Amino acid sequence: MTSPTLFDPVDTEVPKKKKSKRVSVAEESPATEPSADPKGESKADAKESKQENSKARDISVAEFFEKNRHMLGFDSPSKAILMSVKEAVDNSLDACEEASILPDIRVELSAVNDKHFLVAVEDNGPGIVDTQVGKIFGKLLYGSKFHKLSQSRGQQGIGISAAGMYGKLTTGKPVKVISKTRRGRPVETVLSIDSLRNRPEIHSQNEVEWEGRKHGTRVEIEMEATYKKGARSVDMYLKQTAIANPHLTLTYVDPSGNAVTYERNTKEKPPVTVDIKPHPHGVELGRLITMLKETPAKSLSGFLQEEFCRVGPTLAKRIIATAGNGLTDKSYPTRTAKEQAGELHRAIQETKISSPPSDCIAPIGEELLLKGLKKELAADFYVTSTRPPAVYRGNPFQIEVGIAYGKPGGVGLELTDSGRIQKRSKAELATEDLVANADEPARVLRFANRVPLLYQQAGCAITKSIIGTNWRSYGLSQPKGSLPIAPMAIMVHIASVWVPFTSESKEAIAAYDEIITEVKRALQEAGRKLGIYIRKGKRLRREFDKREYIEKYIPHIGIALQEILDLDDTTRDAAVETLEDVLHRSRKF
Amino acid sequence: MTSPTLFDPVDTEVPKKKKSKRVSVAEESPATEPSADPKGESKADAKESKQENSKARDISVAEFFEKNRHMLGFDSPSKAILMSVKEAVDNSLDACEEASILPDIRVELSAVNDKHFLVAVEDNGPGIVDTQVGKIFGKLLYGSKFHKLSQSRGQQGIGISAAGMYGKLTTGKPVKVISKTRRGRPVETVLSIDSLRNRPEIHSQNEVEWEGRKHGTRVEIEMEATYKKGARSVDMYLKQTAIANPHLTLTYVDPSGNAVTYERNTKEKPPVTVDIKPHPHGVELGRLITMLKETPAKSLSGFLQEEFCRVGPTLAKRIIATAGNGLTDKSYPTRTAKEQAGELHRAIQETKISSPPSDCIAPIGEELLLKGLKKELAADFYVTSTRPPAVYRGNPFQIEVGIAYGKPGGVGLELTDSGRIQKRSKAELATEDLVANADEPARVLRFANRVPLLYQQAGCAITKSIIGTNWRSYGLSQPKGSLPIAPMAIMVHIASVWVPFTSESKEAIAAYDEIITEVKRALQEAGRKLGIYIRKGKRLRREFDKREYIEKYIPHIGIALQEILDLDDTTRDAAVETLEDVLHRSRKF
Repeated sequence: MTSPTLFDPVDTEVPKKKKSKRVSVAEESPATEPSADPKGESKADAKESKQENSKARDISVAEFFEKNRHMLGFDSPSKAILMSVKEAVDNSLDACEEASILPDIRVELSAVNDKHFLVAVEDNGPGIVDTQVGKIFGKLLYGSKFHKLSQSRGQQGIGISAAGMYGKLTTGKPVKVISKTRRGRPVETVLSIDSLRNRPEIHSQNEVEWEGRKHGTRVEIEMEATYKKGARSVDMYLKQTAIANPHLTLTYVDPSGNAVTYERNTKEKPPVTVDIKPHPHGVELGRLITMLKETPAKSLSGFLQEEFCRVGPTLAKRIIATAGNGLTDKSYPTRTAKEQAGELHRAIQETKISSPPSDCIAPIGEELLLKGLKKELAADFYVTSTRPPAVYRGNPFQIEVGIAYGKPGGVGLELTDSGRIQKRSKAELATEDLVANADEPARVLRFANRVPLLYQQAGCAITKSIIGTNWRSYGLSQPKGSLPIAPMAIMVHIASVWVPFTSESKEAIAAYDEIITEVKRALQEAGRKLGIYIRKGKRLRREFDKREYIEKYIPHIGIALQEILDLDDTTRDAAVETLEDVLHRSRKF
Repeated sequence: MTSPTLFDPVDTEVPKKKKSKRVSVAEESPATEPSADPKGESKADAKESKQENSKARDISVAEFFEKNRHMLGFDSPSKAILMSVKEAVDNSLDACEEASILPDIRVELSAVNDKHFLVAVEDNGPGIVDTQVGKIFGKLLYGSKFHKLSQSRGQQGIGISAAGMYGKLTTGKPVKVISKTRRGRPVETVLSIDSLRNRPEIHSQNEVEWEGRKHGTRVEIEMEATYKKGARSVDMYLKQTAIANPHLTLTYVDPSGNAVTYERNTKEKPPVTVDIKPHPHGVELGRLITMLKETPAKSLSGFLQEEFCRVGPTLAKRIIATAGNGLTDKSYPTRTAKEQAGELHRAIQETKISSPPSDCIAPIGEELLLKGLKKELAADFYVTSTRPPAVYRGNPFQIEVGIAYGKPGGVGLELTDSGRIQKRSKAELATEDLVANADEPARVLRFANRVPLLYQQAGCAITKSIIGTNWRSYGLSQPKGSLPIAPMAIMVHIASVWVPFTSESKEAIAAYDEIITEVKRALQEAGRKLGIYIRKGKRLRREFDKREYIEKYIPHIGIALQEILDLDDTTRDAAVETLEDVLHRSRKF
């Protein structure tokens, strides 16, 4: 329980020799005297322990994350480039949506030298006022999204500043931001984060010329990075972003200068979501006490109505009556915090309160989801399923699932209009890399508030839910404790006012029971439809095999008939054709 | 790129109707007027966007983690109790080791009511001075271990305060700490964390009577919790802690009042480790610049020698010469930061510098590891392997591996002294739950700086290394991309001056290439020995089967001989015995 450096300096149990090893050299040397030779140790004494005491001190959140940058997702040069693009694009999309602008985003990657890349992301968002640029790009734990409950991609006030911090850490270079609001002039800010103090250091801020955008923001970060293709690449992230954001037009220039544009599928913006207040049932006792202490409300009734959703005057009265213990509508919140918070908390839990409003969540929607899947994933069969909104810890969330099944070229059997079963030719089938091969585990595409999650798949509630679903009952093979083995991609989207990520890098969803339950239900709904298709496919396959056997013998029967009945070749062929025809009609599938 | 709330308020593109939905009710209502009815929305105008601007603000690190408490491991009541015990025990062990005290720790869990548990952890550590108790237990990101590089269990300055924060959040109750230093009187401090401000709130601090301990600390936290047995229970955590800390005596009282004591295996304390300075090769350019700016050293040569390990005057001279560009031993570090940091960084990378000292790391050691495994895991075969120290990002680390193979009752075949192969009886075999069954994936026991890691197995570099090792070449079956299937437990310990955990909850190791490589090498070393044993076991099994067939027929041969040669029963039995004997000797294994 004891912090090691805080003990009473007189410690008679400690043998001198050992103790001398416990103190490192730098502490016993005056700071300016060079003595870092690791062999230059000398005896430690009680005074030094005292000196060590003073080493217990505050840790700046920025230096914490600089040292633990893998927690933010910056643990390798190839991941760093993805994380930076992701944070920048997420912010751009959030900004456009909140300003009701149809997003048009440009991502450029270019090599500065063999180790350094420049990441540039530009949007047509509303722009940022000059005075805010520093804090937004140069301070961790600063932002507008943390203190409200609303569906947004960012929520922590860490992401983009962390990317800048990584850039500075690995290259020493500051971040460059150009931003123009609708009425202002374009302003270029060069800044970096002072991580020992967690505050922005503005190198320069000047008006500049900026062609092209009427309003928007461009950020440029130079960083040590590696550019790779593959399942966890910037390319894949952007492709999946296009699937989940059908209203986005996205241009991507890769390091070799190739430009791809994902045109928007729809001009309809995602439904506008409202912020909500916490739901009373999701608030823990300790949080309730803090809220009672901090509220500006002067009465308990006012407090309940202002600080929570779904509480009106009547419900507030009922909760307070249930709490009893001398509480009235007019009780002071601060006094309640000290004395009757427990009763109030119990009363809230016991009172029936309607579910949080669901207009705070905007799922992608079955139609657009299906459209996106079909556009980007070539498969034989698609099914989607959207659950009604649910709640974890008082936070509304909603699950959507999409499944693309059937690797083109694999199980490609078709039933023609005439009742014939035929194999599709390879030529009809686009090449595709998002759907797994038939002997591989299904590919999982995870999304949270429309953001693709590419890392930490194994630790994610979505993956756990897929593994925990019985895919055998839908006709797929599934090793114990594993993903189903099938030519399939499973897409799961969680939309929520607060996504519980397992870490600051926002790569995986924490395994709350309510979330796992909802994902499983959505998977089961989609799975049942998939099961019907697969069983039909299996019947088709069996039927196809049977007919193939029979068809093999029909010409021989024709020859036999010809010999027995002394037919001419034409009659024989006609007989064979009739037989084949009868076969297909009699065994119609 | 734009924070959503910071846009220029005049936005003509936005249709009134949509815009009205974008602003939640609470913002347009005076704070004291009850209006939280979600339908009470009204039109928003430019002024409100302006009001929203003011919402971009600092986020306290404590409120950040309160909202994201799953990042700290507090995502479920059953995990919360484990996390709290873990943080408290880790701190106790660190404190005892730094004060060279043989640790004697007592953990008590008791139910307060059907939802609340009291977690109490008591140690014989050096105790904490009164003035420090508040910050250590009531402030996140505060501590003595973050700013140095030394092997310790704690390193972040978060853990125990987070446990207290969770307790307060779920029960409203403060933390109680009793501490006694060798010379002081026992002092009881009652405190909680003010999470909006991330600072301790001391409710009371008084001298009290405390029986028993001459010095030490006891912490008590009441929290919402669930107590479970099983693979991720407090029981299992403590059992594994005993394996990895053979010098620890640990008493554990579970919620039903049963007490277990793990007696220490050795009175030898772990080797005392020294703090080290960063290794020059592990320092990124940006970090170098910060160090140059912040150093108290007045010359470049002094800077290099003081701030890094393995740099003496000669090496400093060589680095500075390599950097060139006008740099001399006497250059000012601050000026160097601005102009020549790049050259200095390049020069450091190009200069050959010996590896960091390894006396900063204390592995458990093969002997004690083996002893611990044998004591707590019943198996047929044990093998351990320790790698020499290695370095990731400038941080020394060392990998140890232990394997326990052969589930008693499963492959239990023995070769007796007389050359007979026999099955062992079940009675000889202790029941065991740490070794997997023969048809299950091997159990993985992960440790970091002697702390068992029970969660996030799939996301851990250790698991990835095990999966990435080819166990088929040691005679085990291993499905693609999975753990080997075998009656086996694989223990992996990483000791390091800075363990790169993937999250603040310290449950999994980040996948640095260097770490994965070392773990794989250690596994291969142990695996080769295991392979020899397994192949021998397989030969034994084949031999056993053959002999069993032959033995089945020997009595029949006896009867046949008896009939043909007209032997009496005694002679027949003697002949059978002789035949069996010959069989065993001729086919000696």
